[in-house]
Amino acid sequence: MVIVNFKTYAEATGKRAVEQAKKAERVHRETGVSMGVAPQFADIATVAEAVEIPVFAQHIDPIKPGSYTGHVLAESVKEARAVGTLINHSERQLKLADISEIVRIAREKDLISLVCANDPNVSVAVATLRPDIIAVEPPELIGTGIPVSKAKPEVITDTVKLVREVNSKVTILCGAGISHGEDVSAALKLGTQGVLVASGIVKAKDPYVVMREFAEASKH
Amino acid sequence: MVIVNFKTYAEATGKRAVEQAKKAERVHRETGVSMGVAPQFADIATVAEAVEIPVFAQHIDPIKPGSYTGHVLAESVKEARAVGTLINHSERQLKLADISEIVRIAREKDLISLVCANDPNVSVAVATLRPDIIAVEPPELIGTGIPVSKAKPEVITDTVKLVREVNSKVTILCGAGISHGEDVSAALKLGTQGVLVASGIVKAKDPYVVMREFAEASKH
Amino acid sequence: MVIVNFKTYAEATGKRAVEQAKKAERVHRETGVSMGVAPQFADIATVAEAVEIPVFAQHIDPIKPGSYTGHVLAESVKEARAVGTLINHSERQLKLADISEIVRIAREKDLISLVCANDPNVSVAVATLRPDIIAVEPPELIGTGIPVSKAKPEVITDTVKLVREVNSKVTILCGAGISHGEDVSAALKLGTQGVLVASGIVKAKDPYVVMREFAEASKH
Amino acid sequence: MVIVNFKTYAEATGKRAVEQAKKAERVHRETGVSMGVAPQFADIATVAEAVEIPVFAQHIDPIKPGSYTGHVLAESVKEARAVGTLINHSERQLKLADISEIVRIAREKDLISLVCANDPNVSVAVATLRPDIIAVEPPELIGTGIPVSKAKPEVITDTVKLVREVNSKVTILCGAGISHGEDVSAALKLGTQGVLVASGIVKAKDPYVVMREFAEASKH
Repeated sequence: MVIVNFKTYAEATGKRAVEQAKKAERVHRETGVSMGVAPQFADIATVAEAVEIPVFAQHIDPIKPGSYTGHVLAESVKEARAVGTLINHSERQLKLADISEIVRIAREKDLISLVCANDPNVSVAVATLRPDIIAVEPPELIGTGIPVSKAKPEVITDTVKLVREVNSKVTILCGAGISHGEDVSAALKLGTQGVLVASGIVKAKDPYVVMREFAEASKH
Repeated sequence: MVIVNFKTYAEATGKRAVEQAKKAERVHRETGVSMGVAPQFADIATVAEAVEIPVFAQHIDPIKPGSYTGHVLAESVKEARAVGTLINHSERQLKLADISEIVRIAREKDLISLVCANDPNVSVAVATLRPDIIAVEPPELIGTGIPVSKAKPEVITDTVKLVREVNSKVTILCGAGISHGEDVSAALKLGTQGVLVASGIVKAKDPYVVMREFAEASKH
Repeated sequence: MVIVNFKTYAEATGKRAVEQAKKAERVHRETGVSMGVAPQFADIATVAEAVEIPVFAQHIDPIKPGSYTGHVLAESVKEARAVGTLINHSERQLKLADISEIVRIAREKDLISLVCANDPNVSVAVATLRPDIIAVEPPELIGTGIPVSKAKPEVITDTVKLVREVNSKVTILCGAGISHGEDVSAALKLGTQGVLVASGIVKAKDPYVVMREFAEASKH
Repeated sequence: MVIVNFKTYAEATGKRAVEQAKKAERVHRETGVSMGVAPQFADIATVAEAVEIPVFAQHIDPIKPGSYTGHVLAESVKEARAVGTLINHSERQLKLADISEIVRIAREKDLISLVCANDPNVSVAVATLRPDIIAVEPPELIGTGIPVSKAKPEVITDTVKLVREVNSKVTILCGAGISHGEDVSAALKLGTQGVLVASGIVKAKDPYVVMREFAEASKH
């Protein structure tokens, strides 16, 4: 599983979000590997209409419909046809009680919950909340091109080991610095089920080529 | 000028956001009064495609394109065809330096900046940042149906008087509890150029009827 | 164990913080029951000099010595002779990664970590971070005088049961609405090792009498 | 006027906060120049008992006595004998409405309000709230040793010019990178009434020598 976080990159805003998503969809069709994308809120509807692969929101708030100007409602991203949401990305960290409530809301609204964690300890705490997916990403490696699977493999192996003690079902991803197919292979060998990636794809000269490389690597 | 804040109301999410916006557009066409709408982020593109009246974001972040997962980029809401944005709504308050930066970004990106303030003192501070529009809304009246123009007219008159000492150009709106045409007339008589309204319209039995009433009232 | 949170109550600020702490100390001497107090930051040094019972900070920040104007440094409250700190109180909630880091810092600095949680799920997540003490407090009952041990006993029993599955050592307290000795007895019968209490003592007509009642109740 | 912000530096925590404050007091006695210090919350009482120069809190919250665990109450720092407080330091930025409320509380409680601003625009907005003192500090220069008075003199002159258009009384300080007596002289020549300084003094080999140099420079 490869999930591409579009962040607020110019290269993945508006029309370019649709283009990137179409490339991911093409790779999925060509390889059979699960590819998902997480565009900005204002692009969810357009992207979800353009492709059939899973579209994630980058964040939702722990709220019900009501007086919450400027917040992100689960019902809203769902009606725009997101099938899931990132939660607690290191660039959008949340209070613990809010993570718990958002995971609950996602379950209730039938949205896939992907909770990010910065290290093994936080991953375990997150795992007890029973989200669908956890992604462990050491913040100091995000956007560096230095892959977590090479620079800090113990972060991944510790996360897998400790999370499995409290949660046998959750899907475990890793991220940060993933730039090459071999980083993906390494991540899988260390016990994860896939990667959460952003600049490594979105800011690549040819995102399609990199996505294809990632997908091939994840098949072995 | 009547700007309708859709907040995260169920009555103005997804398809229902488009319906509400079409009613506002119809009122604009029938009366000539300026009507604007502020839907949720994920609805901006769909709403802006469905209507020709101005569409506002409910918030943007003080960021440039980059690594800001879960944030709201000016370029993104603009490409979705928002023409402006609310800033610092009492339900989404911001740090002072961030308000300043967002107003600057809005100016640079040619987005209308509508900054909310909770009282006359804060309105004046906001006015010095030279946004396009200020909306003063006493938070304790928001959503109550008790109109600020009746319950706290001095908040409006003080705001108009003090803001004009530092900024002669900014458009001044008021909001909170606005439910009837007479509340709009009163707001205009007290020196504002229009109203920012949410539940009074969105949660009304017949939003069209209320919008029409507001528009008529603002013509006198 | 009875820990009295002084919050920012007028009745427990400055000199009155010292008076309240002395009453707690007297109850400890008379009954042998462990009594702790959590005064405001500016009162820690004075209170800790006046009494020999444990003094807790109400919060510390996830920081090292450095450029953090207006933040609360572990080293600072420790030098003022706090022996521990509350973390993530429902009135001062924290990001998950920050809770994790503060628990780590507390361990490193030999401060007792008391992490608050609002429900059983959050309690379990917290328990995996291995703090010294967890206090579960349903926010909706805080300050109401309606004791959690009577109104929501299942919150306590679920917390005890679920926490013990991941952490056999952590001390478990409960709080919210604790006003009478019988509330304390009930909390202990439900499996906790004590209570975290605030207004029930601090705002009582005679805090000494209530503390004494709590202490007696916790002996049975 | 020279105000020394102790931040959360190890060199100015606990006993060392008292030592630094005594040096500032000595410089005040020797030169007659106004010297103030802003220690951490837990050090306010001890420092204020040890010296007679003005002691500032580094932050207070916009609250009244009540249920605000982990917050900083004006009454508390005042009873610990702070005579004023920093507000909105770039390391502890606040929402606009909160700055407004804190300035109001400080006035009500007879505490000197010193509001920090990051640039001339924000300084003007702050000035309309009528605090006692404004300190403009470009965040990118804080802690660098590159003095704002040399690197960005226009930030100071613009601030002075624009602030005076809306507020003729407020004391204007500047800060960031102030390390030498000549930086202080330059700041005064550019129209300020003093400096807010931190690492330049606290982390100096001999803080007394630097404070003395600053004081001498501010006499000319």
